[in-house]
Amino acid sequence: MAKGEMEFIRRLTPLLEKETEAAMVGIGDDMAVLAFPSDQLLISTDMIMDGVDFQSNRHSWTDIGYKAMAVNLSDCAAMAVRPVAALCALSLQESLSIDDALGIMSGVRECGREFGCPVVGGDTNSWSAPTAVCITVAARPAGDRPPLRRSGARPDDMLCLTGPVGGSILSRHLRPRPRIDAAIEINRALEPRAMIDVSDGLAIDLWRVLDASGCGAEIDKTALARMIHADAHQLAKQDGVSPRDHALYDGEDFELLIALPASTNDEQLRTFGLSRIGRFTKQAGCRLIGRGETIEIQRRGWEHFR
Amino acid sequence: MAKGEMEFIRRLTPLLEKETEAAMVGIGDDMAVLAFPSDQLLISTDMIMDGVDFQSNRHSWTDIGYKAMAVNLSDCAAMAVRPVAALCALSLQESLSIDDALGIMSGVRECGREFGCPVVGGDTNSWSAPTAVCITVAARPAGDRPPLRRSGARPDDMLCLTGPVGGSILSRHLRPRPRIDAAIEINRALEPRAMIDVSDGLAIDLWRVLDASGCGAEIDKTALARMIHADAHQLAKQDGVSPRDHALYDGEDFELLIALPASTNDEQLRTFGLSRIGRFTKQAGCRLIGRGETIEIQRRGWEHFR
Repeated sequence: MAKGEMEFIRRLTPLLEKETEAAMVGIGDDMAVLAFPSDQLLISTDMIMDGVDFQSNRHSWTDIGYKAMAVNLSDCAAMAVRPVAALCALSLQESLSIDDALGIMSGVRECGREFGCPVVGGDTNSWSAPTAVCITVAARPAGDRPPLRRSGARPDDMLCLTGPVGGSILSRHLRPRPRIDAAIEINRALEPRAMIDVSDGLAIDLWRVLDASGCGAEIDKTALARMIHADAHQLAKQDGVSPRDHALYDGEDFELLIALPASTNDEQLRTFGLSRIGRFTKQAGCRLIGRGETIEIQRRGWEHFR
Repeated sequence: MAKGEMEFIRRLTPLLEKETEAAMVGIGDDMAVLAFPSDQLLISTDMIMDGVDFQSNRHSWTDIGYKAMAVNLSDCAAMAVRPVAALCALSLQESLSIDDALGIMSGVRECGREFGCPVVGGDTNSWSAPTAVCITVAARPAGDRPPLRRSGARPDDMLCLTGPVGGSILSRHLRPRPRIDAAIEINRALEPRAMIDVSDGLAIDLWRVLDASGCGAEIDKTALARMIHADAHQLAKQDGVSPRDHALYDGEDFELLIALPASTNDEQLRTFGLSRIGRFTKQAGCRLIGRGETIEIQRRGWEHFR
């Protein structure tokens, strides 16, 4: 079959052109040029790799492309900012066909379209090693609200989640829903102090907020039990790890972990679909408490380059 | 030895902090936040891979990191724009030590420092496959001059090069000098019509300008002979390919190919170290002419994903 970067780009270009109205140049030049009506630029990058973040022998190339974009857009959610445009660099295993490569880009574009992030450029390579997809997203603050960082949590702040966690590996991890709109609404309405997306696991990502904020946290055992995803219960039956440990230490949920002022009321939490699972504390460390028992929450989760 | 992404980032963070004055947040949050005093944003990404763009058994990790940044900054030169910040995503072969990984970042940072582009974030991964380094650069227009595209060349425009080409594989390809300052000066002073960096080869990159501009070009055989790099002559002795073919079809020179108005005079060319090698033509195609002979210049060079 016909191959080659030029042929791939020839077939990809008209597909991307439909989505690059925001771009003044788009693909086909050395850099993408974008109108940028903001005095703050946010950028982040995330690479996903065959055999690590996906399995090309089990997952469709479209799902893989979708995931590559979604994990990047989840970083926009974590900062409560609007994505502007994305770049997609590919290192394609050389046995892939152009249709496979276009399948990846079709998933990337599908996710980008859903969340308002056109693909405006990239880089295409091939080699004998497995495929990797590296996406970069540029974003801007939403309205006049500043980007939300990890470092603003204070003792007595409420610790909330946007949805249940654990067991995403069963299938949810391929088609995560970046919580961009929710994050921006919450940032506008609730004066949140800090936020992060649960990408490497509730425990490790909470620890990151604690390290950045210089405080501790306690999670309520009963409240956490209500936020254990059905997938975590199912997975627990298969592997013997407790549902709670799946909820604490599994990665790729992409729900948001938020520090809110203690004064936030139940009505506000309901409005934004938030569940309170604990609170931030002056005492350092991270603990699970309830029924007269305290368990240390470990500083572990999905760690690359182990 | 101690490993792990967290340990790597713990050791990397203080190194990067010195260079991220431009960044308002820098590394350690979900996205880098930058002050951005421009209404146009330029972004591009380029991945280099072990066994394709470098050989980790022959090249130092620092040189490899330098190259990864340099090829990206060369895209800024091609558009005549100022780099603002870079992100670096790594997929590290799992046998690498943290010192190897820091070696890559040391080369990335060294090149970034030389050309005014701090590293403000990234993504670290490891796997059993070879190492890849994917860098993304954000940039802004220089002064009030618009970014220079590939599409503005017109018949009778002068075709110029910033330096000799060919044979870069002998060693120059590892430490290329992105021509950012030259590009910005030329864009300010000479009203260039189109520009590209010679990354995949003089012939293929010239063809890209011709395709984008909708015209043809002819290269003068004698003028080109003067722009054949000494490395191309040396390589020709080893592999039997002519020095001229090395100059036309080798990649990774990172000199600039520029379309200038026909009225540009010799004094102006000298001032900016430019060498005229031909002209753009109404007649389509790309030809080498001289001594009563015309040779078609092929649409080939370094193509990935073959």
